[in-house]
Amino acid sequence: MSRRPASPGAAVGKIVFTAEAAVEKAAEGNTVILVRTETSPEDLIGMNVAQGILTSRGGMTSHAAVVARGMGKCCIAGCADAIIDEKNKVMRIGQLVFHEDDYITLDGSKGDVYEGKLPVVDPELSGDFGKLMLLADKHRRLKVRTNADIPRDANIAVKFGAEGIGLFRTEHMFFEGERIKAMREMILAKTLEQRKKALAKLLPYQKSDFKGLFTVMKEKPVTIRLLDPPLHEFLPHAEEDKHAIASETGVTVEELERKIEELAEVNPMLGHRGCRLGITYPEITEMQTQAIIEAAIEVEKELNITLVPEIMIPLIGNINELRHQSNLVKETADKIIHDRNSHLKYKVGTMIEVPRGALTADEVAKEAEFFSFGTNDLTQMTLGFSRDDVGKFVPDYLKKNILEYDPFQVLDQTGVGQLIHIAIEKGRKTKPGLKVGICGEHGGEPSSIEFCHKAGLDYVSCSPYRVPIAKLAAAHAALKN
Amino acid sequence: MSRRPASPGAAVGKIVFTAEAAVEKAAEGNTVILVRTETSPEDLIGMNVAQGILTSRGGMTSHAAVVARGMGKCCIAGCADAIIDEKNKVMRIGQLVFHEDDYITLDGSKGDVYEGKLPVVDPELSGDFGKLMLLADKHRRLKVRTNADIPRDANIAVKFGAEGIGLFRTEHMFFEGERIKAMREMILAKTLEQRKKALAKLLPYQKSDFKGLFTVMKEKPVTIRLLDPPLHEFLPHAEEDKHAIASETGVTVEELERKIEELAEVNPMLGHRGCRLGITYPEITEMQTQAIIEAAIEVEKELNITLVPEIMIPLIGNINELRHQSNLVKETADKIIHDRNSHLKYKVGTMIEVPRGALTADEVAKEAEFFSFGTNDLTQMTLGFSRDDVGKFVPDYLKKNILEYDPFQVLDQTGVGQLIHIAIEKGRKTKPGLKVGICGEHGGEPSSIEFCHKAGLDYVSCSPYRVPIAKLAAAHAALKN
Repeated sequence: MSRRPASPGAAVGKIVFTAEAAVEKAAEGNTVILVRTETSPEDLIGMNVAQGILTSRGGMTSHAAVVARGMGKCCIAGCADAIIDEKNKVMRIGQLVFHEDDYITLDGSKGDVYEGKLPVVDPELSGDFGKLMLLADKHRRLKVRTNADIPRDANIAVKFGAEGIGLFRTEHMFFEGERIKAMREMILAKTLEQRKKALAKLLPYQKSDFKGLFTVMKEKPVTIRLLDPPLHEFLPHAEEDKHAIASETGVTVEELERKIEELAEVNPMLGHRGCRLGITYPEITEMQTQAIIEAAIEVEKELNITLVPEIMIPLIGNINELRHQSNLVKETADKIIHDRNSHLKYKVGTMIEVPRGALTADEVAKEAEFFSFGTNDLTQMTLGFSRDDVGKFVPDYLKKNILEYDPFQVLDQTGVGQLIHIAIEKGRKTKPGLKVGICGEHGGEPSSIEFCHKAGLDYVSCSPYRVPIAKLAAAHAALKN
Repeated sequence: MSRRPASPGAAVGKIVFTAEAAVEKAAEGNTVILVRTETSPEDLIGMNVAQGILTSRGGMTSHAAVVARGMGKCCIAGCADAIIDEKNKVMRIGQLVFHEDDYITLDGSKGDVYEGKLPVVDPELSGDFGKLMLLADKHRRLKVRTNADIPRDANIAVKFGAEGIGLFRTEHMFFEGERIKAMREMILAKTLEQRKKALAKLLPYQKSDFKGLFTVMKEKPVTIRLLDPPLHEFLPHAEEDKHAIASETGVTVEELERKIEELAEVNPMLGHRGCRLGITYPEITEMQTQAIIEAAIEVEKELNITLVPEIMIPLIGNINELRHQSNLVKETADKIIHDRNSHLKYKVGTMIEVPRGALTADEVAKEAEFFSFGTNDLTQMTLGFSRDDVGKFVPDYLKKNILEYDPFQVLDQTGVGQLIHIAIEKGRKTKPGLKVGICGEHGGEPSSIEFCHKAGLDYVSCSPYRVPIAKLAAAHAALKN
């Protein structure tokens, strides 16, 4: 009845209007569809347990859509016909009125919403499809990895034929249950000691997730990105949450509000995030490294396999940033490996997502064992387009033929592509054979994949459901060129 | 007593705590110092009439500092010792308490605040200083222009030896008196007709300012930048202003609030601004062009001189954007020139401030008659640093030797400089001899000026008080290289 496909697949479930209700009902054994005006990182916990997500605001590149694709989950984002009243738990679409616990069915490929429970079929990756994939595998040169945020997504992706993880975002793991409390304690800490105490609480969670991840992926390559988003994303926005969170974390509401104000940024995209966090708070990088290395050592032993975790430092624009973080990772990792009598190998590499990182790739490559192009951010900065705000002018640009396509869906080969060429050329001049991949949304888009093939990348990484398409596109690119 | 020099010079005056009070007291013949926690575009009207500005928050690159330097006005920004209570009109610095109408003296070069009226001396540009300037003029190749926002600033700059205007920001003219009302009417317009009506009210203001500018500058080159900031900057932020503004502009408070929410952006720096505004609302570009061209034709006649106004389109990342705006400017201008039987010549050029604009400069140069590097924005996007938010991590970066200097003060020659080299090379390949300048804050910084000399720029443009320093630096660069 309304079309805004944002993440493919089908989903059936009972309507819930909050992340909390999603968790509660799912725990009772229900399948649920999370229905929200729009989603924010605070909804991740609910999105995670939901079968599908429906929002009235947003589009292909909104929070809901990006996260849903990352989770390999069906999503319709920006269903403008839906009027969602979260407070009173009612959704209206035209004449139809939906309440909590009513069943709906979503078709995320077409963007259609259906009343009630429609029969859905789990995707089959065998038969003719399987043969086609085998054929694609024979011809393609590009490897195809997947982007995943939790071990379960990695599992889905492997079923879809992913050959590794190109981007494992560690921050999504911080939103669930007790973790967010410890994360908030860390952010609200007034002393280094307090911060370390909170980080120590996060360590076992991180480690157990990494163990889950390595167990699923076994010897397939896994790239883990260290904490990336600005810290204010982890603090509450709703007035009603502030009291509870203040008392939970042992601060006053005033202190909490002061911290929220202190962390607020005019342009968070260009603010205190990525490696800038790890440089200001080295103890975060140390904790994450400890979790990765200990998890890898333990899984190596348990499964008697050989792992080479790839630790990725985000938002590098300057060799000194990478050197600072890389030294920290290596010191932390090597000490653990030595203390545990392990022979674990690991790699330290970087996202190339800041234009300056691409322009100085010859320098950056001195410290990086691999590059991964974060083309979402690279597109934002190279074009000066905020992904969250392009809705204000990109539709007009498309209509007036100023843009041929949305640059967040199809890679801008002329501009962003030029920086990719520069970075590869400079990077491999310093380090011949440097492994290079892409982990932005473009890694699943056929024309962008052809560009990656021609530019000499080693792999693309995309959301789980796009893996088969990416393999086909990689084969086409190889046959064509 | 507290050091945070943000814009040099000295100022003596009575303390005022609001822009309104500044205007009122100045109209009564007082000299005033505007004292604020921090400034926003709504304070421009007060900053304009003040002798100097003192803020407790911010730094070298805050709104107060940047605007004050643009106005050639003394400013101390981020005077952390000052506790400013705007509501009760009290400022405390240590044991001292200041009220409205108390005299203070600012030393913007050292960042010192003095109680009472200290004697100050107007700068002399004659004697030994004059001789030095003559010597500098003999040796330098780079021209030195100035950045100005209102005709009076242009006047100051000419006295300081500026050879033209490199950046005349048209938006600052929209904040004064009746203009802001018409600007808000334009933003709140529901139909094209309403918007055109509001723009028609703005036209005479714009035109009279441009006439003032051309009258001051005479045949010296003048580059006028079309509207650049996001429109939400022109709407009120304070609750108490909303009622008055709603009734003034003939909308309900709800409509005003809806518009404010609609225009709000997650990353305004990368949002709906610059040429994106002129593309969405071509009538703005048309009105501004009409004002420039009519003003130039009339001043040419009145003073019997020849003018060649340079119209600059901001935030170009794509040749199609420039083509769209350039066609609009030319159609509008040529019609007026024809109708008025004039022979006025004018130029249409572009800011190079988006990395993609630099990377595709060969294309952009097809439509541009000049380039001007907007190195503030170019630095923001190339490094991924929000100028408003760098206070969160750049001090730490400097301390940890990750950065050698603040890239908003000293041009990052390795990264941003690389894009400048690329743009000049590509631009002049398409259009040999293309005129190229710089109008970011770096245009007044000696090491950046040396870079500009070596990179083959034609001119630098800086705030009025930095013109002599820029001339000296340009001469040093020429003698050294």
